[in-house]
Amino acid sequence: MAETGTSSAASHPLIESDHIEGTPVFDANGKRIGTIKRLVIEKISGHVAYAVTSFGGFLGVGSETHTIPWEQLHYDTKLHGYHTTITEGQLRQAPEFSRGDEALLSGHQRQQLSDHYMYMADL
Amino acid sequence: MAETGTSSAASHPLIESDHIEGTPVFDANGKRIGTIKRLVIEKISGHVAYAVTSFGGFLGVGSETHTIPWEQLHYDTKLHGYHTTITEGQLRQAPEFSRGDEALLSGHQRQQLSDHYMYMADL
Repeated sequence: MAETGTSSAASHPLIESDHIEGTPVFDANGKRIGTIKRLVIEKISGHVAYAVTSFGGFLGVGSETHTIPWEQLHYDTKLHGYHTTITEGQLRQAPEFSRGDEALLSGHQRQQLSDHYMYMADL
Repeated sequence: MAETGTSSAASHPLIESDHIEGTPVFDANGKRIGTIKRLVIEKISGHVAYAVTSFGGFLGVGSETHTIPWEQLHYDTKLHGYHTTITEGQLRQAPEFSRGDEALLSGHQRQQLSDHYMYMADL
């Protein structure tokens, strides 16, 4: 009952740009594998391009930051977080530029990253 | 020259969710009338729904916070900010729920607000 405020925000279909950090990410089995650090947005279209995500001890992977294309994240209204089917193998073989959280990606890098996660689903 | 880093980020087509605050908003004449405090994003689609914007002394209006539907903001790659054709009259007659920055809007409120700014352009 004391959590009404929080639950209400968690179950609301909208989220504020300054409240995104910490949104959980779950794997295909519903296990919590990380949290979103920030979303990166196209200034003109207003569409999210990708999420910078912190994975904490996902299977064999230690705590790492990875850029995940938006199309690999699917909001789950019951879990109040995003689930993804990306695998440990995909994260391990991800392009170097998609690790860490310093840079904004170029269009070419976004395409490369999108291809990596789309076509290497069974790594 | 010393601003290369900043210019580069300002001219990049992407923006990080935690760097949105302070993005300038310009009126139809190119005058800076306010800044974006936050964007509010649809969790499922990843599309921006609206912007919570601080207007500082826009014409007769003092410093006020207003919720502005996304379709009223158009990114200008030269100004590195959003321009809008909304008027002082529209802001003055905006629904009460769209003032201040506390709440997330319901679907009904979003529609009301969208209609207000779309059909009252000549207030």
